[in-house]
Amino acid sequence: MMENHSGWVTAIRMSPPSLKDNTADADRLIDELKSRFAVDSVAVDLPLLRQLPRLFRDSGYSVRCLCFKDQGGFRLLGVKAANDPSAFFGMAVDLGTTRVVLRLINLETAAEIHETAFDNPQIRIGPDILERIHFASTDEGLQAIQRLIIDGLNENIHRVFDKSAVEIADLYLLTVSGNTSMVHLLLALPPHHIIREPYIPAVNILGTIPAGDIGIFSNDNARIYLFPNVGSYFGGDLISGILYSGLHRKEELSILVDVGTNAEVVLGNKDWLVACAGAAGPALEGGVSKIGTTAGPGVIDRVIIHPHDRSIDLHTIDELPPKGICGSGMIDMMAQLFLSGMVDIRGRLVPENCGNRLKETGGIRRIVLAWAKDSATGKDLAISQVDIDSLIRSKAAMYTILSTIARYVGITFHDLSRFYVAGTFGSFINPRSAITIGMIPDLPETTYQTLGNSSLGGAALVLTSRAALDEVAGIRDRITYLELNVNQEFMNRFSAAKFLPHTDPSLFPSVRIAK
Amino acid sequence: MMENHSGWVTAIRMSPPSLKDNTADADRLIDELKSRFAVDSVAVDLPLLRQLPRLFRDSGYSVRCLCFKDQGGFRLLGVKAANDPSAFFGMAVDLGTTRVVLRLINLETAAEIHETAFDNPQIRIGPDILERIHFASTDEGLQAIQRLIIDGLNENIHRVFDKSAVEIADLYLLTVSGNTSMVHLLLALPPHHIIREPYIPAVNILGTIPAGDIGIFSNDNARIYLFPNVGSYFGGDLISGILYSGLHRKEELSILVDVGTNAEVVLGNKDWLVACAGAAGPALEGGVSKIGTTAGPGVIDRVIIHPHDRSIDLHTIDELPPKGICGSGMIDMMAQLFLSGMVDIRGRLVPENCGNRLKETGGIRRIVLAWAKDSATGKDLAISQVDIDSLIRSKAAMYTILSTIARYVGITFHDLSRFYVAGTFGSFINPRSAITIGMIPDLPETTYQTLGNSSLGGAALVLTSRAALDEVAGIRDRITYLELNVNQEFMNRFSAAKFLPHTDPSLFPSVRIAK
Repeated sequence: MMENHSGWVTAIRMSPPSLKDNTADADRLIDELKSRFAVDSVAVDLPLLRQLPRLFRDSGYSVRCLCFKDQGGFRLLGVKAANDPSAFFGMAVDLGTTRVVLRLINLETAAEIHETAFDNPQIRIGPDILERIHFASTDEGLQAIQRLIIDGLNENIHRVFDKSAVEIADLYLLTVSGNTSMVHLLLALPPHHIIREPYIPAVNILGTIPAGDIGIFSNDNARIYLFPNVGSYFGGDLISGILYSGLHRKEELSILVDVGTNAEVVLGNKDWLVACAGAAGPALEGGVSKIGTTAGPGVIDRVIIHPHDRSIDLHTIDELPPKGICGSGMIDMMAQLFLSGMVDIRGRLVPENCGNRLKETGGIRRIVLAWAKDSATGKDLAISQVDIDSLIRSKAAMYTILSTIARYVGITFHDLSRFYVAGTFGSFINPRSAITIGMIPDLPETTYQTLGNSSLGGAALVLTSRAALDEVAGIRDRITYLELNVNQEFMNRFSAAKFLPHTDPSLFPSVRIAK
Repeated sequence: MMENHSGWVTAIRMSPPSLKDNTADADRLIDELKSRFAVDSVAVDLPLLRQLPRLFRDSGYSVRCLCFKDQGGFRLLGVKAANDPSAFFGMAVDLGTTRVVLRLINLETAAEIHETAFDNPQIRIGPDILERIHFASTDEGLQAIQRLIIDGLNENIHRVFDKSAVEIADLYLLTVSGNTSMVHLLLALPPHHIIREPYIPAVNILGTIPAGDIGIFSNDNARIYLFPNVGSYFGGDLISGILYSGLHRKEELSILVDVGTNAEVVLGNKDWLVACAGAAGPALEGGVSKIGTTAGPGVIDRVIIHPHDRSIDLHTIDELPPKGICGSGMIDMMAQLFLSGMVDIRGRLVPENCGNRLKETGGIRRIVLAWAKDSATGKDLAISQVDIDSLIRSKAAMYTILSTIARYVGITFHDLSRFYVAGTFGSFINPRSAITIGMIPDLPETTYQTLGNSSLGGAALVLTSRAALDEVAGIRDRITYLELNVNQEFMNRFSAAKFLPHTDPSLFPSVRIAK
């Protein structure tokens, strides 16, 4: 087994006690750990303290120890005999509003053992954060909504450990990255003031808590690390994402965009970080259009419209008959509709270019992507003008946020060496399509880099890298949070961005429309 | 209400949040506390975090906070609205093998509210530590013996709070000073190796633990501070005692003696501390002689034997008919028997000087202190030669320990500016009598100073003084523990000290015997 020397597990061989060296058991180990990790204090919980005398004597004073940062010092979370075949495990948790992802990691080798995801059971209360926070306005509501996510986590932790043939008693450390509200609901912290002016979380900097305090199945001494939030609308999931991207370590300027219900944007380098977040609209998450859905089998994720005959090729996940369209599919579709002239520069369906695919009911036009005979639902799959308008508002919001932050720090997009796109959804966006509709700047496609689930990635990093955890506080402290001031100037820029790709086509020289 | 500015409670008036200052609630308070106390971190438990948003808004962001040291930083234990009429309370606990003493203190004013004592319920398992440790050799035994003391503490905490008309929910902090074994049994730490070579405690440096971890009735966020031990035979009760005596802050040389089953001795000044401990014998605790008992109503605590006719005057506690004799009474009696010639220099009863008070059964002589008609028991109250021999061994052990430590550091007793006598028992010793029998050195009586329950006193200090707590680690680290090497030289000194007052009477020039 390869030891990960930059991680939280270390092997310690102590000299056994004698009449000449009668240091107490725990103190003997703590002295070694303090010098090994160069820290002033190493705390130990009572249940673990109770195990040390026997463990030391059975192991000949040769052990492996798992520590983690806690307050100013370290905390000892677990000790095993040097030759104990079991390992210490940790779980990275991406606590999403919609989806929760768990990744089981061997803390000694940094190996990924298993990954699973499940829908956040709080969706039962409401799909969006506001409804959940309203529900949590009483103590009973808050406890009930906490119970949902805790039960969901426990159920899935059980499943992961069963599949991986690892004992849950070997789960010693969880790292959780989530947005500010989700973390409040996980810990049953009153979220009331997050959504009310002046938007105050109960707490931003949480550190570690005992896993038992919120009833997470794990070792008795397990701790949960929670990434700090910057504020109500900038959560630990983004800090985790920055950590994962590494943009805070680079000389050159980069931007990181996490696209979901909110668009969260971080711009900076090793010296400074500016962040902002704004509603990007639900169209990108597939929550609004009738056929919109999250990615899954049978969901349209790529659209090609052939310029010569405007025939439509759909690609679906697992190549099953189409049953809906996901966010990245919507962006592809929009780009193709625009390039083929089937929508105009204002995003309006153009009847003369849509042919028999154009339908109209109750004054609302829609375009059929797949006919009933080809679809999984047995009905025509169509996108309405309303859906398109919603998507255009979302893309305009995104571009406006990006241009606002760029103006704020006084750069142009061409100063960026990297444009990171994070989020499960972001991973599937075709940058060419997103550029075509003017959602993201017209930069060389090689500038764009998808990160996948960067929030989970950062949480996993912290599980096995002391250096990574050390960077977190620095990232948080360096962030200047730019409150988006939705004033007339912002609205003007937003209106300009509602065109395809933009009212100022010189901003998108690479986008050329078929005539 | 007078605020104690050197204590753990502080008033904080925060500026309320605004759009321009949207620091999270907890972080807002923590920032203030960090600067107030000049510490790098202030941790907060979840249950308390959950209360802050409402408390801040209800109080107009004006609060009183109770913190305590925890690891490298501080921990916030409680917050009350500035105008909340209730106060924060703490409990100092002297966790004795035989007797447990509780002192309730208002943490804001440092006022003592109530004090109570009860017998350590573990006496049911065995009066001495060895029996209890043997009993605790199984997990069940350890848990059962822990249960006894926890139940005893909870029962008495309830009683104290009832009497004081204070809510137990306002108990936020307990400070416990006890010997190493008692602390192990309180926390259910395996005590097995404390009594087996090379005498290794599970832990010496404990710091604070959540009161809930061992089921002590208190506020949900309450913490228990445990004084660190030096080793198996030198516990936190003595560190606490040193703290209370202040000998570690003095230029001049002092000695501190805590007399119980063990005699624990500390010699030093502000630069160095040398400590040792040794069995002083049970005679001093009244555990052995048939009429020996701990102090209480009807117990003989002073004895005067008139030199001209050898008539005996007894003083009893509360001046009730005598029913037994306590340790300090034994020392008084011994001194008087010796001065009046009723025992000789070797401690043997002298028949020709004892008159009709001398009795003999089965070859063992005894001397009647009170006749049946005057005693509470209706029987003669007598001390046997066996009791006397036991007392002489105890006093010889004490003197030998004192002379050993003095020789070790190369001083004579006359170099001492102060001789502190600690322990409830110690408070009642008449120094003149103790000098007369050669138990303590022949120094001017003004050199002697009784401290009362110094272990409790130190625990109480830490409850209301940050500076006092800061001194604890320094005391512990400066102590050189002198392992009493019971070799031939020690035995020679012990044998010499078994005479009254000593084989070398020049050591006790003030002691003059009636002829």
